[in-house]
Amino acid sequence: MVYTSATIEKSIEMFASLPSIGRKTAQRMTFHLLRQPTEFVSKFASTLIELKQNVMFCSVCFNYTDTDPCTICSSHKRDHSLICVVEEPNDVVVIEKTHDFYGIYHVLHGVMNPLEGITNNDIKIKELITRLEGVNEVILALNPTVEGELTTHYIAKILKQLDIKVTRIASGVPMGSSLEFTDEATISRALESRIAI
Amino acid sequence: MVYTSATIEKSIEMFASLPSIGRKTAQRMTFHLLRQPTEFVSKFASTLIELKQNVMFCSVCFNYTDTDPCTICSSHKRDHSLICVVEEPNDVVVIEKTHDFYGIYHVLHGVMNPLEGITNNDIKIKELITRLEGVNEVILALNPTVEGELTTHYIAKILKQLDIKVTRIASGVPMGSSLEFTDEATISRALESRIAI
Repeated sequence: MVYTSATIEKSIEMFASLPSIGRKTAQRMTFHLLRQPTEFVSKFASTLIELKQNVMFCSVCFNYTDTDPCTICSSHKRDHSLICVVEEPNDVVVIEKTHDFYGIYHVLHGVMNPLEGITNNDIKIKELITRLEGVNEVILALNPTVEGELTTHYIAKILKQLDIKVTRIASGVPMGSSLEFTDEATISRALESRIAI
Repeated sequence: MVYTSATIEKSIEMFASLPSIGRKTAQRMTFHLLRQPTEFVSKFASTLIELKQNVMFCSVCFNYTDTDPCTICSSHKRDHSLICVVEEPNDVVVIEKTHDFYGIYHVLHGVMNPLEGITNNDIKIKELITRLEGVNEVILALNPTVEGELTTHYIAKILKQLDIKVTRIASGVPMGSSLEFTDEATISRALESRIAI
């Protein structure tokens, strides 16, 4: 053992278990915390505890929230007739950052994946169907992967049967990128989804 | 606010305050912890608390330790007549990883820096002087910066007056690197420190 403290070793292991954190960064974090006042480290620890204690899923949209329903679902400034369906809570953050979406969300918590045995019943599709009263449009904003496409088509089929307008976000060449560095599947989709100017 | 949970926002701020962690990584860490069992997150939190509760400075070498004196200072397998002086606890880790040093350490906790008003009294130089009984050699392994050089020369002068053998680690072209990509100051030092083969 290169560390003279088992506690330091334990802390490094904890941090290194987090995604995209190697042992070197974990060590830097640990040594940084050792130099901070005890109050700061205590606050850090209690924030982690609160994370599991306070944060739950919104019973309407299944996004993370401290209060149920969440601030978006209970906002009167939001258009409740427009639902954007995403895979994960993180996708809500990504869309909120654009400040361009004024509707509400529905988080599926995954996508259908037959190879891994994840079916329509394993994600929040039923829960979406039960909240369609007064809804004019459902925007499907799943990732353009094989599983995302499968789930998009599955949900679109159900919603069309229920006479709900269904749209999906566009796939194409990213803004600021070039055709040269864009893969063929994306170019195909961009051509297919071409719009009149 | 793009997050629907103030607790999540607080956790992201905490992680983002750590060195080399941006908000994106902080968010990924937070969402990762939300998906972990409560037991894991509690263990994480208590490890942080223990970090400040259990870890102290070794009263001999001033490295981090859970027990005083530290495992290196109290080891009979180590050569207690050979002290390696380093700037920070992290440097002990770096040298221990080589498995090539069999002596003991002394951590200065900084270097002299006249511009920032850090003098010889602000780092653990006095404490080094008081532990020289039975010591044959002191290796100075400070960083080859202006402040590190200043501190190296200051300590070397004192130790020579006390008739202690003083050495310093070599500076030169890093192993696996090439002269082409090595700065001039390093090449100068490498020439100056040339050894017979």
